[in-house]
Amino acid sequence: MAQNGRAVKVVALAGGVGGAKLLVGLDAGLGGNLTAIVNTGDDDSLYGARICPDLDIVTYWLAGIADERRGWGIAEDSFSVMDSLGRLGSATWFRLGDRDFATCIHRTQRLSEGATLSGATDEIRRALGVRTQVIPMSDDEVRTQIVTRDGETLAFQEYFVRRRADVDVARVVFAGVEDAKPAPGVVDAIEAADRVIVCPSNPVVSVAPILALPGVRGALAAHPSVVAVTPIVRGAPLKGPADRLLKGLGIEVSASGVARLYSGWCKTFVVDGSDAVEAERAEGAGMRTVILDTIMSDRDASARLAESLLSL
Amino acid sequence: MAQNGRAVKVVALAGGVGGAKLLVGLDAGLGGNLTAIVNTGDDDSLYGARICPDLDIVTYWLAGIADERRGWGIAEDSFSVMDSLGRLGSATWFRLGDRDFATCIHRTQRLSEGATLSGATDEIRRALGVRTQVIPMSDDEVRTQIVTRDGETLAFQEYFVRRRADVDVARVVFAGVEDAKPAPGVVDAIEAADRVIVCPSNPVVSVAPILALPGVRGALAAHPSVVAVTPIVRGAPLKGPADRLLKGLGIEVSASGVARLYSGWCKTFVVDGSDAVEAERAEGAGMRTVILDTIMSDRDASARLAESLLSL
Repeated sequence: MAQNGRAVKVVALAGGVGGAKLLVGLDAGLGGNLTAIVNTGDDDSLYGARICPDLDIVTYWLAGIADERRGWGIAEDSFSVMDSLGRLGSATWFRLGDRDFATCIHRTQRLSEGATLSGATDEIRRALGVRTQVIPMSDDEVRTQIVTRDGETLAFQEYFVRRRADVDVARVVFAGVEDAKPAPGVVDAIEAADRVIVCPSNPVVSVAPILALPGVRGALAAHPSVVAVTPIVRGAPLKGPADRLLKGLGIEVSASGVARLYSGWCKTFVVDGSDAVEAERAEGAGMRTVILDTIMSDRDASARLAESLLSL
Repeated sequence: MAQNGRAVKVVALAGGVGGAKLLVGLDAGLGGNLTAIVNTGDDDSLYGARICPDLDIVTYWLAGIADERRGWGIAEDSFSVMDSLGRLGSATWFRLGDRDFATCIHRTQRLSEGATLSGATDEIRRALGVRTQVIPMSDDEVRTQIVTRDGETLAFQEYFVRRRADVDVARVVFAGVEDAKPAPGVVDAIEAADRVIVCPSNPVVSVAPILALPGVRGALAAHPSVVAVTPIVRGAPLKGPADRLLKGLGIEVSASGVARLYSGWCKTFVVDGSDAVEAERAEGAGMRTVILDTIMSDRDASARLAESLLSL
């Protein structure tokens, strides 16, 4: 994709695996002209280390080392540290492979040495040979919390991993977002991009935290070419707890339900070919709707979807 | 060993491998009636974790899981975390195996949850099936530092591992010792013991830090049966940098040189059979001298030395 003889710059907003798959396709087509802005609301501190699940999974997929079948961590990783921690009596409900854990330890060390999260993230992606720029949404701590109907407040990983998302969700809170700024380069990258793509990531806990940062929603609203890919196909998420989160918040679990969430800043909404009935409904949210094959069953499918998105 | 029909209680002061080997022999003979008081001056904070090399090596030997040939860490441990940290650009001069690292992470978590070092150490030795009590010399931070003739101040692991003890030592400092207390049970255990054994550990950086804690030297001086095993045989340490440290401090590198260091509180000093000439010289330091085979080439040799020490 080129425009007026120069390479086209693309920014993609992403959460975990759904985002990572599309980023792999975009990376293949765009070389070094892709910038991923990644949710950090899922971050936590565990085992004395700063855990950044979305940043890491995106980086691992782009580096070609992700455990693509399992959906988290590094392929063929070992689990000596977790197994030993368990034998010593530590809680190990959040499983991290040894190599995956090393990423977290390295990041934690760099942060304690004064590096910013965006600086450490950039070092890690370069060390792993990733050419796409990976930027955390913020260098400040924003923590997604799930408030249950019983009045409990759960840290996101507590909700998602420990409790397997098996709670009645009343509210989602992005703790710290009032005092957080977007990481350096986030708003600039959006403004300088020829196209912004919102990956098929969880709208409530992957996309919404990025949008909640000051200046991001405004930059998207002002941008002429913002394309979002539905994370809901035929009434269900391809992965993760988006359905239960949407339901808890009283939002219809459908592509058009997500489109309505995205109205005001999204210009083009992509629904899946198997779910074409949603296209017309989504148009009601005031945006152009496009039908594509959005199911990324392998790298070729990711590349095809990326190519379609770039040529819209 | 029994006295007046009851089991004899023994306390042993220990540093790293030399101490660990004798503890294994004593543990075999004493069942649950052994208490090890272990140096923590070598401790450090690395990779975001509290590293306690002497506590861990002693515990691993007693648990039967130590890498006895290499002299540190756990047998057949893997090194995925260190290898990955290295690939990411972290300094990894202090190598920790994955299982060994898990011990440090577990301890660090317990400390951050409010446990004391002695509490965490006790939990770890129980989890690893060790019946001998293992007590850190202090719950407070004491840090052995090496001051070089060039005026540099090196943390102990920096000196020992990173610089391979290849510096000219001017002074040894136990930073923090003025404000540190012995861990709960240290002085009580010495006072209640029928015999105190000082293991063949480094006199300058393993034994001296324990003695520098308030009340310990006095408790040893007041105790009727304190037996120290020489760590120097025929003018050389069996392991480690004791020779260079002693030389730097102007102390003769010989069994009798160590005996003079221990005068005032040591009642019986054990020299090696191959070094009998030192026995007479050591007696000049004002203590009874005994000649034994102190070289612990295997577990049987450790058990034999332990038996001899208990029947003195």
